[in-house]
Amino acid sequence: MDFSSFITSLATSFMIFVILMILFAWLSTKPGNAVVYYPNRIVKGMDPWEGGRSKTRNPFAWIREAMSSSEEDIIAMSGVDSAVFFVFLSTVFGIFVLSGVVLLPLLLPLAMSEHDAGILDSTGKNAFRDLDKLSMAHINERSARLWAFLASCYWVSFVSYFLLWRAYQHVSNLRAAALKSPEVKPEQFAILVRDIPSSSEGYSRNEQVDTYFKSMYPETYYKSMVVTDNKEVNKIYEELVACKKKVRRAEIIYSDSKKGPNPQGVKPTHRLGFLGLLGKKVDTIDYCNERIRELTPKLEAAQKETLREKQLASALVFFNDRTTASAAGQCVHAQMVDTWTVMNAPESRQLLWTNLSKTYYAREIRQYVVYFIVFLTICFYMIPIGLVSALTTLANLEKLAPFLKPVVERAAIKTVLEAYLPQIALIVFLALLPKFLLFLSKAEGIPSESHAVRAASGKYFYFSVLNVFIGVTIGGTLFDSLKEIQKNPNSLVQKLASSLPGNATFFLTFVALKFFVGYGLELSRIVPLIIFHLKRKYLCKTEGDVKEAWLPGELGYATKVPTDLLIFTIVICYSVIAPLIIPFGAIYFGLGWLVFRNQMLKVYVPKYESYGKMWPHMHVRILGALILFQITMVGYFTIKKFYYSALIIPLPILSFLFAFVCRKKFYPFFHTTAIEVASHDLKETPNMDLIYKSFIPWSLNPDKLDDERLGDGPSYDLRPALDAYAQTQDV
Amino acid sequence: MDFSSFITSLATSFMIFVILMILFAWLSTKPGNAVVYYPNRIVKGMDPWEGGRSKTRNPFAWIREAMSSSEEDIIAMSGVDSAVFFVFLSTVFGIFVLSGVVLLPLLLPLAMSEHDAGILDSTGKNAFRDLDKLSMAHINERSARLWAFLASCYWVSFVSYFLLWRAYQHVSNLRAAALKSPEVKPEQFAILVRDIPSSSEGYSRNEQVDTYFKSMYPETYYKSMVVTDNKEVNKIYEELVACKKKVRRAEIIYSDSKKGPNPQGVKPTHRLGFLGLLGKKVDTIDYCNERIRELTPKLEAAQKETLREKQLASALVFFNDRTTASAAGQCVHAQMVDTWTVMNAPESRQLLWTNLSKTYYAREIRQYVVYFIVFLTICFYMIPIGLVSALTTLANLEKLAPFLKPVVERAAIKTVLEAYLPQIALIVFLALLPKFLLFLSKAEGIPSESHAVRAASGKYFYFSVLNVFIGVTIGGTLFDSLKEIQKNPNSLVQKLASSLPGNATFFLTFVALKFFVGYGLELSRIVPLIIFHLKRKYLCKTEGDVKEAWLPGELGYATKVPTDLLIFTIVICYSVIAPLIIPFGAIYFGLGWLVFRNQMLKVYVPKYESYGKMWPHMHVRILGALILFQITMVGYFTIKKFYYSALIIPLPILSFLFAFVCRKKFYPFFHTTAIEVASHDLKETPNMDLIYKSFIPWSLNPDKLDDERLGDGPSYDLRPALDAYAQTQDV
Repeated sequence: MDFSSFITSLATSFMIFVILMILFAWLSTKPGNAVVYYPNRIVKGMDPWEGGRSKTRNPFAWIREAMSSSEEDIIAMSGVDSAVFFVFLSTVFGIFVLSGVVLLPLLLPLAMSEHDAGILDSTGKNAFRDLDKLSMAHINERSARLWAFLASCYWVSFVSYFLLWRAYQHVSNLRAAALKSPEVKPEQFAILVRDIPSSSEGYSRNEQVDTYFKSMYPETYYKSMVVTDNKEVNKIYEELVACKKKVRRAEIIYSDSKKGPNPQGVKPTHRLGFLGLLGKKVDTIDYCNERIRELTPKLEAAQKETLREKQLASALVFFNDRTTASAAGQCVHAQMVDTWTVMNAPESRQLLWTNLSKTYYAREIRQYVVYFIVFLTICFYMIPIGLVSALTTLANLEKLAPFLKPVVERAAIKTVLEAYLPQIALIVFLALLPKFLLFLSKAEGIPSESHAVRAASGKYFYFSVLNVFIGVTIGGTLFDSLKEIQKNPNSLVQKLASSLPGNATFFLTFVALKFFVGYGLELSRIVPLIIFHLKRKYLCKTEGDVKEAWLPGELGYATKVPTDLLIFTIVICYSVIAPLIIPFGAIYFGLGWLVFRNQMLKVYVPKYESYGKMWPHMHVRILGALILFQITMVGYFTIKKFYYSALIIPLPILSFLFAFVCRKKFYPFFHTTAIEVASHDLKETPNMDLIYKSFIPWSLNPDKLDDERLGDGPSYDLRPALDAYAQTQDV
Repeated sequence: MDFSSFITSLATSFMIFVILMILFAWLSTKPGNAVVYYPNRIVKGMDPWEGGRSKTRNPFAWIREAMSSSEEDIIAMSGVDSAVFFVFLSTVFGIFVLSGVVLLPLLLPLAMSEHDAGILDSTGKNAFRDLDKLSMAHINERSARLWAFLASCYWVSFVSYFLLWRAYQHVSNLRAAALKSPEVKPEQFAILVRDIPSSSEGYSRNEQVDTYFKSMYPETYYKSMVVTDNKEVNKIYEELVACKKKVRRAEIIYSDSKKGPNPQGVKPTHRLGFLGLLGKKVDTIDYCNERIRELTPKLEAAQKETLREKQLASALVFFNDRTTASAAGQCVHAQMVDTWTVMNAPESRQLLWTNLSKTYYAREIRQYVVYFIVFLTICFYMIPIGLVSALTTLANLEKLAPFLKPVVERAAIKTVLEAYLPQIALIVFLALLPKFLLFLSKAEGIPSESHAVRAASGKYFYFSVLNVFIGVTIGGTLFDSLKEIQKNPNSLVQKLASSLPGNATFFLTFVALKFFVGYGLELSRIVPLIIFHLKRKYLCKTEGDVKEAWLPGELGYATKVPTDLLIFTIVICYSVIAPLIIPFGAIYFGLGWLVFRNQMLKVYVPKYESYGKMWPHMHVRILGALILFQITMVGYFTIKKFYYSALIIPLPILSFLFAFVCRKKFYPFFHTTAIEVASHDLKETPNMDLIYKSFIPWSLNPDKLDDERLGDGPSYDLRPALDAYAQTQDV
């Protein structure tokens, strides 16, 4: 890529960004869009335009608001997890700014002023043009200028260690502050017990758990809740809720129709068969009311039966003191350690109920099976895509779906389809991959949603780095490279190092595109805006429907974090080879900080709180990227035939040491709750009954079967809506 | 080795064994030897000849007694650790008996009846003679008879899994029973806290620890004992004790001398200089009494100063409830996990006080440094021995130690010395090795004696297996082999497999020698008997001296366990290749069980109790030996060009799985005390003051500075004597 096309690409991206910004400034002031641009505020019961809205409002006011918001504001609006995400963004931003301040003025002049290396390209011309002259590739072999590049590696590494250390300490303090807060948090009073052995004495599970824990914690034990097999009761419950929603919606349609030309109105009807398309036609209101009458006693019977007969081998155990609960969640309780395994309970809203009763060895085996599947997916993902493309040639498509024939036969469409079918398969695969990885992570038997998201995020990160970064750099898929590496295990580093400089401009453009277009779309929320308005116009009937249409959910760490980590990996690996990439990395994370500050304060509604457990996960991967950078540099210095390239070898060793110390010093507190933190005083004596009830699943709670669940009326109470959402996701 | 020389060697060993047995039967009935043959009973205040002693006593009565003793007897006399050692012996015995019952009648006829393989040795004769015909080496390549050998591998493996599983369960129950006993055990009420951060608020360490734990355990916290730097106070204390002993001894000598020709007696004197050989001559009684008068106030002052000024960053923390103590020893207490690290306290008598205050990172670094030194020792131990031999040639010896010249110059001695100097260096090295490894293990910063012994035992095992077994088999030291293996990593298994059959007879004789001569010496206690009688005659003056002369101490697991494990490794590796070794292995462990049953009941006085923590250590190494066997067999079947040799590959994988499951199921309870075990009721309310005092080191306890420590009078109270012993070892 030469200089002019690079500038063109940059300018185009920037133009798109500017347009989206203008759109955002214009759209976000419209009152009808408030639920799209300020849902988090609305959910929290606040005024969307807190800062004051007027026609003359400064379109850049959001920047001022984002800049002036403090960490406490973020924690109040969006929780500790969001605050930790900003620590991540600002740490990485800091690494790039501090690196750039030294590396740009030092390395760029050195590279530019080097006498031509005299390397010719295939056309016989000098291989270096414009941008390439600014990179380390332009330095001659064995040049003394390489010392500056070597020193730069050290600078980048030490800046990273310093900032990561401070960040880990800061996050640890954030977590501690949240956990020692005097507010009563139900999950701090509970532990999750799994692998309860089958009782020989004819006890019920409940009695067994009570006896067991009461003998150990006679004074602080409160009660236990045995996990049950809720499949059947959930089914009835879901149907009941669906019926209630249908009645409500049908009543509104009916009363609306009375206002029309027919004053008696038209009673809405629907069909009972497949997807409401086939089968008998019935009057919706009558039919559903009838079903509700049938289902209500059935649900009660099923609830009772489930509680009595379908107890599984795991339970939530409650203590009336959070110090004891925290200690109990960390201790070995049973002599045989594969029974009565304990852990601190996650929040009730993020419990994955169906995973709770999986036994110890089932979890272990599932984990290894999932790792193996992920390994296959990462290495050989091109194979299924290839197969799909082969199967879905146009000829096959016509055979399988004859009704598509008239469309497909048109010449223009045919050409496009023929050219793009494999690409479409790839795009579909990449779009579905995060969901697939989340599904796999849940299949491991992980008990909480946030943990599953972390596991999925880790898997996605490995996929991105191995296939996008290393794949693009080396060329071809990882599978091809693997075959070569098998022959000579050391060749990967060599090959990676030698291919890096050639791809610098590509990744430069890649990063710029990511932030201009990505952040533009993120901030302006064009897609959710259109979807919301379409839904409201054509689908939503009740207030609940409308709320469901705009409720934005959470940020989606499972894809956001690995994407950001991929950008970090790319920029850090190029930081010394092509220092020009550093400002782009800095802008990516700086602008990201600003945009997401706005989004977190005003848009996203987090589904759960893990108190910063994401940080160790990010920390390790940042360090992994740093080590990849250091090893690549060892390879690249060797290619440059620099005699002192061995001097970089201490760097990866230092990184491992740093990781080891951080793991030992900080990590265990993220795995569990330290006693010194849990033993802080509470504001009030906890109401144990409320705490207990907050863990009862919706489908088993007779009290909760009211209208609250249906989102009726302008109630902005967060918990029920989120719980309902989480519940449907989990079952 | 041919058949006749094998028989000769066996017969000789057996003769020695018979002679030693007769000696034992004769000597053990003499009353003067009771303290040598029954010290454990005497220490426990029991009658040495409980079963009744008479001139007509059956010389095999000890066998009956050993056979009829139950596990409870062993635990009562010698503790859980000894019982666990017998579980180890009987498990391994069981593995060999069950293997032998199937393998001997199956494989020996198959091997013997095979047509000659027609392999010729270097002299052109048939390479197979007598014993060799009974081994797998005699089976032709690709023979169908190899199927039986393959099946045998599976049989041996499954027998091992089955017995190991039962043994682990049994040991776990033994441990649980001991830990849940209603007796008050001081160490169950204490935790060891290390890495206490330096306090900023001008608190003393004591106040700091008290404040910290009181806030977390307001009701169950009792008191803390901050570890102090006792170097100086120990020095004064040791001198004071030595002076007291000297006075006592001198008084006896003085009063004895009055009975002699001179009725006024001779006052004993000694010199003050180097080793009592040089310097001023003084009257011992007067001088020592003077020193005692000087030292007593000095000790008191030093004690006060130590307690006030020399507090270190670790402490013992006491709770008045063992459930809380057990839980507190397992939990993460601090937000920064490299501070306030906790563990369940070991017994006071096995605390390594100087290690307690080592900081977290110091411990980690020391550990890796020690591992590295051990690695060097194992691989390159021939180098220092070679150097020593080279330096200590006779010529050098004469130069360095001229006074030896007249001795060395004699022809006979000269020849012997010249021939054996390198061997002597090797023997000295091997004799010192266990002590060196124990020293290294203590240098790791391990807080308890039993843990250090386990660590040393592990290191010694690796040394034995790598150098004795693999070294002898392959020939030459490990270092030579390493050079070859570096060239082709797969060659080790091949080489080991091909060299095994040739050494079968050597190891057969080795095992037989070990049990006949080893157990004969062990049971007859000839060496301790002679040393005791010599000491009593020439050195011992006071009762305390006599007791010190016979007090046998403990078995010495640090060398006994790795030696037994080495024998197990050898026998299991040969079990299928040369099944004739199995009966020898069975006799080794069966006879060992019998002999040590006697020794444990009557002789050895254990220094400490770790409640079976040695078992996981032995279990893992037994499994390691099994995996070595399985991998060797893979190699050997390949050499035999057996097409189905791949069928053994599942075996090592199975072993790893088995190890994994055992680790998950059983191990954590051996690492710590499960709450369900600790929460059992106690017989009485614990006397916390006594518990606290039992942890005060001798040199710091003003109450304990009485005559008890000097072993005066026929007091068989175990604890003080042992404590004193442990104390001098640790400091």
